Amino acid sequence: MSKISSLGFPYFFLMALFFLPVCCRLHAQEANKYKETVDFVNPLIGTFGEGNCYPGAVAPFGMIQISPDTEDNLWETASGYDYGDSSIIAFSLTHFSGTGIPDLGDIRFMPQVGKPWFVQGPKNNPDSGYRARFSHKDEMASAGYYSVKLSDNHVRVECTAGDRAGMLRFTFPATDSAIISIDMSKNLRWNTIWSNIRVINDSTICGYHMVNGWARERYVYFTAVFSKPFLDFGVMNDGKLMTYNTYRFRSAKESAGKNLQFFARYSTQTDEQIVVKVAISAISSESAASNLNSEIIGLGFGQVLKSTREKWNAELNKVSVEGTSEEKETYYTALYHAFLTPMLYQDADMTYRGLDNNFRKAVGFTNYAVFSLWDTYRATHPLFCLLQPARNADMINSMLAHYDQSADHLLPVWSLSSNETWCMIGYHAVPVIVDAYMKGIKGFDAQRAYEAIKTTAMNADYDNVKTYSILGWVPFDKENESVSKTLEYGFDDFCVAQMAKSLGKTEDYNYFTHRSKAYKNLFDTTTMLMRGRDSKGHWREPFHSHEYIQGGDFTEGTSWQYTWYVPHDVKGLIDLYGGPKPFTQKLDSLFTFNDNSSDNVSDIQGRLGEYWHGNEPSHHIIYLYDFAGQPWKTQQYVHTIIKTQYGNKPNSLSGNDDCGQMSSWYIFNAMGFYPVCPGSNYYAIGSPVLKSITLHLADQKDFKITAANLNDENIYIQSVKLNGREWNKPYFHYDELKNGGELSFVMGPKPNKKWGQNVDFSELDQK
Amino acid sequence: MSKISSLGFPYFFLMALFFLPVCCRLHAQEANKYKETVDFVNPLIGTFGEGNCYPGAVAPFGMIQISPDTEDNLWETASGYDYGDSSIIAFSLTHFSGTGIPDLGDIRFMPQVGKPWFVQGPKNNPDSGYRARFSHKDEMASAGYYSVKLSDNHVRVECTAGDRAGMLRFTFPATDSAIISIDMSKNLRWNTIWSNIRVINDSTICGYHMVNGWARERYVYFTAVFSKPFLDFGVMNDGKLMTYNTYRFRSAKESAGKNLQFFARYSTQTDEQIVVKVAISAISSESAASNLNSEIIGLGFGQVLKSTREKWNAELNKVSVEGTSEEKETYYTALYHAFLTPMLYQDADMTYRGLDNNFRKAVGFTNYAVFSLWDTYRATHPLFCLLQPARNADMINSMLAHYDQSADHLLPVWSLSSNETWCMIGYHAVPVIVDAYMKGIKGFDAQRAYEAIKTTAMNADYDNVKTYSILGWVPFDKENESVSKTLEYGFDDFCVAQMAKSLGKTEDYNYFTHRSKAYKNLFDTTTMLMRGRDSKGHWREPFHSHEYIQGGDFTEGTSWQYTWYVPHDVKGLIDLYGGPKPFTQKLDSLFTFNDNSSDNVSDIQGRLGEYWHGNEPSHHIIYLYDFAGQPWKTQQYVHTIIKTQYGNKPNSLSGNDDCGQMSSWYIFNAMGFYPVCPGSNYYAIGSPVLKSITLHLADQKDFKITAANLNDENIYIQSVKLNGREWNKPYFHYDELKNGGELSFVMGPKPNKKWGQNVDFSELDQK
Repeated sequence: MSKISSLGFPYFFLMALFFLPVCCRLHAQEANKYKETVDFVNPLIGTFGEGNCYPGAVAPFGMIQISPDTEDNLWETASGYDYGDSSIIAFSLTHFSGTGIPDLGDIRFMPQVGKPWFVQGPKNNPDSGYRARFSHKDEMASAGYYSVKLSDNHVRVECTAGDRAGMLRFTFPATDSAIISIDMSKNLRWNTIWSNIRVINDSTICGYHMVNGWARERYVYFTAVFSKPFLDFGVMNDGKLMTYNTYRFRSAKESAGKNLQFFARYSTQTDEQIVVKVAISAISSESAASNLNSEIIGLGFGQVLKSTREKWNAELNKVSVEGTSEEKETYYTALYHAFLTPMLYQDADMTYRGLDNNFRKAVGFTNYAVFSLWDTYRATHPLFCLLQPARNADMINSMLAHYDQSADHLLPVWSLSSNETWCMIGYHAVPVIVDAYMKGIKGFDAQRAYEAIKTTAMNADYDNVKTYSILGWVPFDKENESVSKTLEYGFDDFCVAQMAKSLGKTEDYNYFTHRSKAYKNLFDTTTMLMRGRDSKGHWREPFHSHEYIQGGDFTEGTSWQYTWYVPHDVKGLIDLYGGPKPFTQKLDSLFTFNDNSSDNVSDIQGRLGEYWHGNEPSHHIIYLYDFAGQPWKTQQYVHTIIKTQYGNKPNSLSGNDDCGQMSSWYIFNAMGFYPVCPGSNYYAIGSPVLKSITLHLADQKDFKITAANLNDENIYIQSVKLNGREWNKPYFHYDELKNGGELSFVMGPKPNKKWGQNVDFSELDQK
Repeated sequence: MSKISSLGFPYFFLMALFFLPVCCRLHAQEANKYKETVDFVNPLIGTFGEGNCYPGAVAPFGMIQISPDTEDNLWETASGYDYGDSSIIAFSLTHFSGTGIPDLGDIRFMPQVGKPWFVQGPKNNPDSGYRARFSHKDEMASAGYYSVKLSDNHVRVECTAGDRAGMLRFTFPATDSAIISIDMSKNLRWNTIWSNIRVINDSTICGYHMVNGWARERYVYFTAVFSKPFLDFGVMNDGKLMTYNTYRFRSAKESAGKNLQFFARYSTQTDEQIVVKVAISAISSESAASNLNSEIIGLGFGQVLKSTREKWNAELNKVSVEGTSEEKETYYTALYHAFLTPMLYQDADMTYRGLDNNFRKAVGFTNYAVFSLWDTYRATHPLFCLLQPARNADMINSMLAHYDQSADHLLPVWSLSSNETWCMIGYHAVPVIVDAYMKGIKGFDAQRAYEAIKTTAMNADYDNVKTYSILGWVPFDKENESVSKTLEYGFDDFCVAQMAKSLGKTEDYNYFTHRSKAYKNLFDTTTMLMRGRDSKGHWREPFHSHEYIQGGDFTEGTSWQYTWYVPHDVKGLIDLYGGPKPFTQKLDSLFTFNDNSSDNVSDIQGRLGEYWHGNEPSHHIIYLYDFAGQPWKTQQYVHTIIKTQYGNKPNSLSGNDDCGQMSSWYIFNAMGFYPVCPGSNYYAIGSPVLKSITLHLADQKDFKITAANLNDENIYIQSVKLNGREWNKPYFHYDELKNGGELSFVMGPKPNKKWGQNVDFSELDQK
């Protein structure tokens, strides 16, 4: 279902209130729907099935994400919203975009009419709680705005959000019991350990809760200002109203415990609107109030939305694209999704909660949190090098602060708020930092960064890195997922080596370069696949190369997917096969193989044979053809994947968006190139899917990609010009792009098998 | 058992290390034990039975109180230590002095030898946990110092404490498994909701826990620096060692959860000492580290103890007394107990956790917490007006800050850390503030204070104050403990009126004076006792005047005790009886009545008939004889009570010391006068129990009290001179004392029934 078809009359009515000058023309023509770049964002993309995106209101990289939750228990609905659901639990203030594990969903607001419920009620019986049914025809979502009319109680809920503060606008029917309830006890899937709520005055409340979830301890404070004084209110603790008990005093205005709710009651006229301004903080309710005051206190709903739309326009306008509305919706929503995470994680006064729960000022940088690094080092941070260099530097500064605060002296692995989850494998903060360093991104201290990188890569405690450094591989008798870890450590070590070299640390360069070759130790020449070895060097027996085995030698995949994970030494990998021909033969079979061993793996989709685009280990694989003399296969698969696994529908994403990685993959591929090996400075050339894309880089430098003759059939490169020169290499370097220029493709219906044969592997390590 | 008899050889040996110049003489003479005033403090007084004091190390009004816990569940052992117990659970960092309800006991340190336990073990089987037996002969306690040798593992533990930081010194036997364990999961009686521990380096750890106890949410952070690097350490979560699990990384250096322990292991030589320096904070572990660094980081154990002893000397030397060693131990330990609470509650950088969990800087004052106001308004804060005027002003500033942060706009009732417990009744912050104001104590804003006082006294929600203000009494059908509340509100309102008058607010003066007469509405002329009335004015039926009924019309007492609670209008009360004679007849029977209705009340002792000195409602009663022509009865009861219910033994206190109130009662009574009505400026004269006491007031003004001929028989006043004048009134005003002077008693074995007959009630309200 598209965004367009979901737009009903109320949307236009309401939008008209904010954009009066254009409202009269909104109905006029389809084209007029897209007045600004921001109009191409459809937050409903990726909300159905595997994408795990949310449809709610958020500013670019915003700390607050106000969005409806339809499901709070299923692992598969990590964002809290599934387009397939028909009832909404509540509207909570924080959400992940595209993660594979649920968390957040903090501080639930819900409008009710009549006697309020303080339990949510199950999906199969919304009437037994505050849950309420809705229909997609009454729902609308755009960048910074979400609205739905709840079918059961006829309340329209609208959300908008700034950086740390947002608004919920409730349009009630006429009733003497219009309720806005807040449930402090719930979040997405996990345990609320403690919560606190205080009524500050007749229209202001504050509180916090602490959640033990995916993040071990996560504090969310909030302050909410209601536009109208409460007619009546109540604080509920364990289902009981906090009130005078005729024995000794018990405040009706505050409570703390595991199971707290608040409700405000109003008498409303037909269509009366009550607006709640709300802000969050990880520090205190007073900091939340400061965030609210500094951001939105004097503003109306429309003003906040307008400001957030302007922010989105500014971010999205860093790229100009030509294409159909559908293509632009796909493209700009992908860019929108890429620009949500990592999130801002500091208050207006620069204070943030550190990894050790101490409060720190972010001095000289902006602090970000939520680093899904196993995913985002691949394409998201490389995209940030192009379009968000300043933010990327601050993300690196945030990671270095994390390192400083880490009890284990480790850069983040999968950090979440002020927590390390240790989710996934490797030390992929390293490629993020090295990639930015190699590209000359300013704004962080390279020496300090290198120290953190090296200390992390030398950690004697972390996941058998020490054994790996001695033995040359991670042995499966000592460590799970040993093959994936060996391979990913190797790539990360390549990155350390690049930075060491650049800093003149030859000894380190040699050491980490040596470690980066570890993949060779796990290449089994009997199966021509990567295979586990134990600490004595014995191969894994029996070896199920196609089988996804939880806790086996591979991470969320099989040997068939991981065998290609040598992004930093593709030539070395090809050589192990005895050259490009046997290499590509083996690679071909990845896409055609149909073994049913892993059919039961429900959460990774987007399958082309055993190439699983729905998860990250596959993301670079199609580009290996570039280096084995068959770039047309890269070109073909780019188009196949984008046609089948991206689009502008709620179910268009084939896998978890993973904090923007799936979307960032699209953004690069749409341009016709991809950062196969972050930390090096080359991009491998694929095949453009849009006719024209212009990157507006820093310092007003434009890099324009054009694709002449491109259409659904003409997906093959006939020729390329780069900055005016004929270009026959299936890769080019960042230097060609960074000062602006033009990459011109001429496309055709059949491969030009002569193009792209010019590969000099020695160039790949160079700037 | 006295402190003296409990001092064994190790005490002298260890003390010798700190005070080498005097050690050689320590054995010489008994008198030489008392080199300094601080030597008269015996922290074991009040640790056996009802007193609920603790024996551990603490500085004056200190934030940290390092003390052994022998019991963590019984309501009756609220300080965690009972002298009757024979095993110690652990040494924790925080303790209440004398409360009736347990809480605190945070962050337990325990030395162990061999394989460490992570459960405490029950009293009847210490060997099944880290609990360890001890003997009082191996125990010693002095101001700022506590030491015990544990019988089971032969480890000597010594504690000392500064303001926010202290030390634990462990003297181990030779062992390859000397353990110092920390249990984060426990506290005195209540639930640890969450805890966190982090190993910062090879000798430093930090963490926090949050306890839901008497205080609804109480955060205690700590940082601990060990004098020797750990040979080995471990963090335990739910009984499992946090360690690498061969799957994915799990830090061995940190954890968070409900059930955390830490242990450090050492190999020790015979008598090897390991010192742990530790500090606490309510803000963060970093603030705890700052507290540690600013207070004790460069100091040795002996230096910290010396500094704390000097602080105690400075505080205790505000009074000079003459008497036997036993009398001086009794006196100075009472003064010590009075100078423990309220506690400092802010970090070295002035930051404290507010009532709303926001962090605030104490600007222009020092923030204190733990206000046991129902107790301490009676004698403790009046004592502070004399001996701690600056601190008392800051306590008032702390209460005003509490008021500012209160969701209910109420001054503290029974505040605990950053919590209001609503324990007990009334609004007795009012007499504390008014008493200080009336005595001209500087350092707080009177206008701001008055606004807080009046707002508190006019609160429409609090405990039927509004009904009381309309009806003239708190009706028992609307509110429990209605008679006690009516009477105490009346006294508090008298105080409001006094301050209103002084500020020229005549209307307020009249209004609150009117309210203060409410006691008359509950005086039942059929029984000549205070008696409950319902909202229609009907008397309570049946009326059990002698029976302690939980949740009845009286607070921790009976009508017989509460009938006398009109401290602000003693004449009015006497008049209700028709004059002094029937009044004193009724009062006499209080002390002789032996009804067994309340024999089952276990926690209030110190009974003389139905006068229960072990609880506060009785504390002013014996002074009523002064105003009814029989001051010799006051004199007699002062001596009876002090002889039987005070002393220098662990079991010398007949009731909970209640944050110093029981001890402050002693301090005043020992001098021969008592503040019957705080908020007025008079003291009623009792009978001195020490031959000479000199108060060293501010500005080097001394007020000396002498008692000629005083001995065990000569307890009756024969004559009095005040500042050189013959004094026949059984009361005098603060003005007579504040500039220094002398109060000279001549004592004899029989009452001089002519003395003290000169009462002018109109003088009692005046300065």
